Amino acid sequence: LLPFVGTVSLMVYFTVQAFLPSKKKIPINPDIQKECEKVATAVDIEDLAEKSVFCRCWRSKKFPYCDGTHNAHNKETGDNVGPLVIKRKS
Amino acid sequence: LLPFVGTVSLMVYFTVQAFLPSKKKIPINPDIQKECEKVATAVDIEDLAEKSVFCRCWRSKKFPYCDGTHNAHNKETGDNVGPLVIKRKS
Ligand code: FES
Ligand code: FES
Repeated sequence: LLPFVGTVSLMVYFTVQAFLPSKKKIPINPDIQKECEKVATAVDIEDLAEKSVFCRCWRSKKFPYCDGTHNAHNKETGDNVGPLVIKRKS
Repeated sequence: LLPFVGTVSLMVYFTVQAFLPSKKKIPINPDIQKECEKVATAVDIEDLAEKSVFCRCWRSKKFPYCDGTHNAHNKETGDNVGPLVIKRKS
């Protein structure tokens, strides 16, 4: 009986854990420049366009710029991330 | 026997799943401005300092600016994220 109870307890534990919101420490960047130890992006102020939209969700196909993918990520995960918008005063 | 085999199979499945890198769709922003539907940050070029370092890891205590917390996040998770650095040409 004891092994059975142990087995069932473990099963319940891992099943519950699998469906709880993950508190695992996981990467937030799935794909971008994974060959780099740290993806820091440097931009000169003088090179900024009238308006630049920079990605902070790590899912843009145009990284370091935002391509709107944060919306899909937010929808899928219940997240609320968005870009950094830098623009010239109008 | 059948319920036992089923139980063990499930246990093995969820145990393995619990230790695999998570592929769950989870939020990348744990805490920042969770009352906002989408955290987009607007900054005027004219207001930029000589050098601004903007957080892209969603863990800075000085968000939208970087406070270096990305290093702890990278260490804990094996991630490689870093800030966006915008500076005046020197
Ligand atoms: S696509 Fe990443 S913030 Fe918009
Ligand atoms: S603290 Fe978030 S990128 Fe540095």
